[in-house]
Parts: sequence; C-alpha cells; structure tokens
Amino acid sequence: QLKNYLDNGDKKRFRKTYLDMHFYDQSTFYLTLNKAERTTLYSILEPDEMGDMFDTIEDDNPLIPELLKEMDLSYASKMLNDMYDDNAADVLEHLDKVDVDRFLEQMPRNDANNLRGLLHYDTETAGGIMTTDYVEFHEEETAAEAIKALKKFAKTAETIYYIYILDSHEDLVGVMSLRDLILLDDNDTLSEKMNSDIITVNVDAEQAEVAQVFRDYEFLAVPVVDHANKLVGIVTVDDVIEVIDDEAQQDYSGLAGVSMDEANSDGPLKAASKRLPWLITLLLLSMITATLINHFEGLLAEASILAVFISTITGTAGNAGTQSLAVAVRRLAVEEINRHEFFKLIGKELITGFVTGLVTGISVCLLVGIWKHNFVLGMVIGLAMCAAITVANLAGSLIPMLMSSFGFDPAVASGPFISTLSDLTSVLIYFSIAGMFMQYFVRA
Amino acid sequence: QLKNYLDNGDKKRFRKTYLDMHFYDQSTFYLTLNKAERTTLYSILEPDEMGDMFDTIEDDNPLIPELLKEMDLSYASKMLNDMYDDNAADVLEHLDKVDVDRFLEQMPRNDANNLRGLLHYDTETAGGIMTTDYVEFHEEETAAEAIKALKKFAKTAETIYYIYILDSHEDLVGVMSLRDLILLDDNDTLSEKMNSDIITVNVDAEQAEVAQVFRDYEFLAVPVVDHANKLVGIVTVDDVIEVIDDEAQQDYSGLAGVSMDEANSDGPLKAASKRLPWLITLLLLSMITATLINHFEGLLAEASILAVFISTITGTAGNAGTQSLAVAVRRLAVEEINRHEFFKLIGKELITGFVTGLVTGISVCLLVGIWKHNFVLGMVIGLAMCAAITVANLAGSLIPMLMSSFGFDPAVASGPFISTLSDLTSVLIYFSIAGMFMQYFVRA
Ligand SMILES: [Mg+2]
Ligand SMILES: [Mg+2]
Ligand SMILES: [Mg+2]
Ligand SMILES: [Mg+2]
Ligand SMILES: [Mg+2]
Ligand SMILES: [Mg+2]
Ligand SMILES: [Mg+2]
Ligand SMILES: [Mg+2]
Ligand SMILES: [Mg+2]
Ligand SMILES: [Mg+2]
Ligand SMILES: [Mg+2]
Ligand SMILES: [Mg+2]
Ligand SMILES: [Mg+2]
Repeated sequence: QLKNYLDNGDKKRFRKTYLDMHFYDQSTFYLTLNKAERTTLYSILEPDEMGDMFDTIEDDNPLIPELLKEMDLSYASKMLNDMYDDNAADVLEHLDKVDVDRFLEQMPRNDANNLRGLLHYDTETAGGIMTTDYVEFHEEETAAEAIKALKKFAKTAETIYYIYILDSHEDLVGVMSLRDLILLDDNDTLSEKMNSDIITVNVDAEQAEVAQVFRDYEFLAVPVVDHANKLVGIVTVDDVIEVIDDEAQQDYSGLAGVSMDEANSDGPLKAASKRLPWLITLLLLSMITATLINHFEGLLAEASILAVFISTITGTAGNAGTQSLAVAVRRLAVEEINRHEFFKLIGKELITGFVTGLVTGISVCLLVGIWKHNFVLGMVIGLAMCAAITVANLAGSLIPMLMSSFGFDPAVASGPFISTLSDLTSVLIYFSIAGMFMQYFVRA
Repeated sequence: QLKNYLDNGDKKRFRKTYLDMHFYDQSTFYLTLNKAERTTLYSILEPDEMGDMFDTIEDDNPLIPELLKEMDLSYASKMLNDMYDDNAADVLEHLDKVDVDRFLEQMPRNDANNLRGLLHYDTETAGGIMTTDYVEFHEEETAAEAIKALKKFAKTAETIYYIYILDSHEDLVGVMSLRDLILLDDNDTLSEKMNSDIITVNVDAEQAEVAQVFRDYEFLAVPVVDHANKLVGIVTVDDVIEVIDDEAQQDYSGLAGVSMDEANSDGPLKAASKRLPWLITLLLLSMITATLINHFEGLLAEASILAVFISTITGTAGNAGTQSLAVAVRRLAVEEINRHEFFKLIGKELITGFVTGLVTGISVCLLVGIWKHNFVLGMVIGLAMCAAITVANLAGSLIPMLMSSFGFDPAVASGPFISTLSDLTSVLIYFSIAGMFMQYFVRA
C-alpha cells in the first residue's frame, strides 16, 4: 500500500503513512525498493527524515555505498550530517577515502571535523562506538534551566536520559539521570544533587570492556573520557548490544574455525572460499599426523588391530580438548588472568583432564577388553586414551591463555585447530604406548 | 575503609559512604563480607536500601539462598518486596517452594500475588523476564498530569522513560517516550501525541525473539501483552542484555559440547563431572566407528598404508562439518526457515561441501601422490576426502535444521557430535573407496 502511494506519486499520503512508522520499519521498507522507487523517495523526503531512517540500517550492509552514490552529493552529505554522528562515522568507515572527503567537504567545517575525529579511533574501542551527540551542562545551572535546555536537545541528542555536568575547567564532575533531574526543585543547582561517583571508560578502552560496564551497572549510557580526563563522548546501550553480538560472534567463529561474516546471501562458491583457508591450513597440520603414523607403519603391519582404534582415541581427545578450549576462551573473555591464576588454572585443567581421561580410559578399556577378549589391548587403548585426553585438555587451555598473555585474541585458537593438533599428540601417544606393550597383546 | 566503618560500628559514616556508591559497587562490597559483617550490615541498612543493592546481584549466584536465610524472615521479605519484581521473581525461582511461600506470606497479598503471577511464566519467555513495575496512564490525561504523576513513580518504576497509554477498556493504545512527553504543552492530552504504532511482544514469546525486537528497534523497553492483548508488563534493555549473553552462551556451549555453566569456582572434579557425560556418549558413538574399521581389517592387513590417512580424512571432514554446523546454527538463531528455504540451504551447503571437498581432495591427492610416489593412492585419498567432506557438510547443516523444524534447540547439535558422527561416515566412505581401488594401488 505504501508502495502504491510511492508508485502513484501520492506524495502527501505517502509522507503521512511513512513518517508515522518506526524508523526501523521505514528502513525495512526502503531496502525493498528498486532504484527508480528509491529515487522518488529521495525527492519526497527531506535529508533529515532520510537520516532518521538511515540511522537504523546496519553499517555493514553491503548496499550502503551504492545507495549513497545514487543520491545527490549534497543530499547525501546533509543526510549523513543529520544522522547520529556515531552512525555516520560507521557508514563513512566503509567507504573509500576519496568518497569520505567528498561528503565531508559538503558539510559545515565543524561537523566535518567532528566526524573526522570519530573516524580516527579504532573501530573496536570506546572511541569507535561513542557518539558526541550528548547533553552537557555546567554545575551551577539550575534544574529548571537544564530541563528547558533539554527540550532543545531532545531532537538532536542521542539520549537525553543522562546529562553530563562540567565544572568551570570543563572537567566532568557529575552525572545525573533525567529521572533524578525531574525530581529536583526548579532552583536546585545541578552540582547539589548530581552523582559525582562517575563511572567512565577511556576512549581507548576495548569495546568488550565497555560492554562489561553496561552488564555490571545496567546503565543506558556511559561517558567516555580522554587521557586528560575530559569528556569526549558517550556510549549508548543500543550500540553496546551490537558490541555484545559482535564479540559473541567472534568467539563463536573461532570455536567453529570459520569466519561468521559469511552472509546469508553469499553463494556456495563465496562460502567455500571463506572456509577453505582454515581447512587447507589444518589439512597441512594433519599431514604431519599422517607422517607420524607412517613412521609407525611397522607396528601397524604387525598389528593391524591398532588401526581400528585410531579414530576413537583421536576423536575423543579432540572432543575433550574442545571442551577445555571453550571454557578457557569464555573465561578469558571476561577476566584478565594474572601469573598466579595462570598456573592455578593450568593445574586445574590438568587435573580435570586426568580425571576425565581416567574415567573415559577405564570405560574404553572395558569395552575393548570385552569386545576383543583382550584386556591387554584394552589397557593399551585405555592408557593411551587417558594420556591423550590429559594432553588435549592441557593444550586446550594453555594455548588460548598463552595467546591472550601475548596480546592475541584467544578466540582465534579455534576448536578445529585444537582438535587437529590433538590428533597429532594423540597418535604419538597411542603408538608409543602400543609399541611398549606390543609383545604382550599380539597373540600370533 | 568502608569495611573499617562497618567493623568499628561507625554507623553514620558507613551509611554516608555506602549509600553514595553505585548499587553495583555496593553489591560487590557486600559479597566480600563475612557472615558477622553482613549481619551488622542488615542492622544498619533498611530493607529497601538492601533491595536496591540486591537488585544488581545475578540471580544465579549460588550464595543467594544462604544470604536470604541469614536475614530475619520479615527483613528478607520486605527486601524482596522492595526489589524490582522481575528480579525478586528471579531470586525466588532458585529457592525451594516452601521457602518461597514463607517469604510471600509475609508480603501484602497484592504484592505476593503479583510475584506468584510472574513465577508462573517460563523463565526463557517474555513473561519470565518482564517487570510489572512500569508506568501507565489513560489517554485523556494531560502532559502536565502525566509528568506530575511520573515524579511519584520515579522511585518505584523500573523505567520512567517510556509511558504506556490505555483507553477506557484498559487496552494498550499508545506508547510515549519521556523525551516526547517533555516536549508537549501542559494541556496536550496524551492521546493526541502518543505513538499508536505499538510494537509489542506476546507474554509467551521466546526470549530470543524479544532480544531481536531490541536489536532492530533500539528500544529501551518493550510492552508485553497477553492473549487478550492486555498490557501485563514490560521488558527493559538491561534484562535483554542478560538474555543476549545467555543465548550466546548456549550456542557456544553447544558448539563446544560442554555446558558453559561450569563456574570459575568449580573444582576440577566438578568440572570433570560436567564434561564426562558428553565425552562418554560420544565415545560410544566412536566405538561404532571402531567396529566399522574392524570390519575392514582385512583391507588394512593387506595395505597398512591405509591406516596412515585415517586421521587426515576424519579430521578434515570433521573440521568442515563443524564449519557448516556453526553457520547453520547461527542462521537458525536469527530466522525461521520455511520448507522452500530449507531445501535451498541444503542445496547450497551441498555445493559448498562439494567445492571445499574438491579443492581439499585435489590438494591431498597431490601431497600424497608426491610423498608416496603413488598417485593412485593419492587419488583414493583425495576422492575419499572429497566425499567425506561433502557428507560432513551436509550433516552439519541438515541435523540442526531438522532439529529446529522438530522444535528442538539446534544449538544442542554440538560440534563434537558432528565431528564424531563425521568420523563414522568418513571411515565408511574411505574404506569403501579404498576397497574398490585396492588392486590398483597396492604394489606388492
Ligand atoms: Mg535524526
Ligand atoms: Mg542497530
Ligand atoms: Mg551503531
Ligand atoms: Mg564506529
Ligand atoms: Mg548510537
Ligand atoms: Mg573477544
Ligand atoms: Mg528499590
Ligand atoms: Mg544484571
Ligand atoms: Mg534481571
Ligand atoms: Mg524471571
Ligand atoms: Mg529488570
Ligand atoms: Mg538459542
Ligand atoms: Mg576429530
């Protein structure tokens, strides 16, 4: 119906219906239009109306550069300038430098500089997700003055539910929620009732750290300060939800050994090209395992029964290693590990590995013993299993912790990597143990 | 220092310092106290002051039942009643039914019934995460009346930043943000300026669905309605952050084949006991693979070289299957898949699997051919690899999609399960293909 209004050029009805919709519903509608319809839309909507809607499009939407290109340069620049500046910066980040400059040149110098400033921060830091569209007051202002001013800011600020209070040196000295503000008497000054126990994040703080502040304190926004402790922006909760999703996605991708930015729209060839680098790398690692087994071919020729249990041992140890990896990565995502805890955790994982290995080893020993009527063979398999699981568990926690302490993201130590590595150690352990007991279990 | 005030019974200084702290910092402090100190604290703080702090303790903190038990029954009940009711309900959910009743009996009947109502909803639904501490008005009220009333609610409501507007039948007819409300003229009625395009969630909606509404619309709260479309509560963004974390945790646990509720405080034995059920189950599955290889022992006795590549093939196919699983689970987490898409996705994954299999197969064929100077053997390994990867990819997407369409959580189809299953199919494929070409590559 809305589309009908647009196609029939019923501008007035279209505007009425469209502008009554939620911005997100507007953008969903917009993204279903063809180019001709979009061009009509640009002639019907003002740049700021367009910006409200554009604010809700994910900045990694691959269509955005094209959409911006089909607009008038000045229309697009006005729209970008009317968007919340964190979102505008996110959009610009995905464009070529020349295009960014073309848009910025059209803007008032102040606004352009502001956006340039935001573009300068790393994407995954507080600076990269903050907005400068916040509300600040001086401490001597009264509640009545503040509320009056807030009404002016209501249209442009990303949130008016927290106000930030500066002293005469422009230092951040207090925060107040609108909830507290409306409870004040008209003549109360802000400094009397503000909260001066301010939780801030540094502009260079990792986005994961920012997210943790929101989890703990349940704020709707957090002030961002620079190294001189000056207020430079705020991070709002809607952007933190995006951060939390991104971080979870990264950890999940790591565990799966596949980049999760595989879009639903990617065809099978593109999907394959994203998955192959990991697979081929791991294939090379697994070829080392093959040469190892090859080294023990004499053993295998004598007792081909040994081959029967290769995949049982490597598979189970790989599963245990994946568990231990997942636990370690999750823990590293929420806390810093110091030297003392490092050894404590490794010790714990070693015991956990040994206990799971022992139980699993005894189980497999009984299964094999009963099945093959050969408990020496069962014991060899069980012993190998126990040792292989202990080692896999150790690797699963040691590797991400070492990576983290050398400053890498531990989530990159993927599940498939650990299980391929554990194939190697398991095979080595298995054949070494089998070699030692060879004479006892081969009944020829 | 705060602890000093407490230990020295300096009640006045303690209260001043403590009450100026953020609620979260209060609870962090509280959780470091010993029992004697906590008892002193209960005598210094009023139940509602205690409740503000208790609101910020995670409801799955295992200490909570003990903490409640050490308080006076009436003190604890008052505190629970002064907490936001969603948090109080979450706390009660972890207690024995008898204890719940003891607390509820102490409360005014209305409040007790309200909490009983909340306890009745499933934990992972909108009803399970909503609060009834929201602000509602009738549509004929004016802006000035609403703001005046809001000041009263500011102390007790979980948020006053959205108000919910009912008509004379007590039906939800509009929503307004405080941001819009303060822009109204004193005499404007709410019905004139409210937003009547209301996005609601049903009280039985899955929490993941609720989270998606927050992601899309970037709301701070969403109204929850029952089947008669009556407003029964609201979900606020801080609780949605918890939901997003929980859902990510569940998916991650599934992929790792380990329950992520393994607490940092769990000892190695407890950790082992949580990991073993999965390991043992998968061990049994891998024993089927062993019997399969056993079945081919004749082949192995003839050509022990075949054993060298078992782990290369099973490992690589397992890695590919894990990738395909992860992609499918992530997709199922955000969208419903209909019949048509089901087959499209399976088709896509089949092609992706075949292409990755082909590239990987050719690589391994060359590696083996060059290494062993035997390109027939290389071709056998490559062919087996290609087929094994295709099948593993198919299983990795088919299994979670089938689970989802039968109403199970697809995230339960864990990575270790897929890779253990893929060990089985890979071995079957490998030895079948090897059997067919046996006479060509064994040069005896
Ligand atoms: Mg705007
Ligand atoms: Mg968004
Ligand atoms: Mg954003
Ligand atoms: Mg950014
Ligand atoms: Mg923002
Ligand atoms: Mg991370
Ligand atoms: Mg309270
Ligand atoms: Mg919380
Ligand atoms: Mg809660
Ligand atoms: Mg609940
Ligand atoms: Mg709540
Ligand atoms: Mg889920
Ligand atoms: Mg494996």
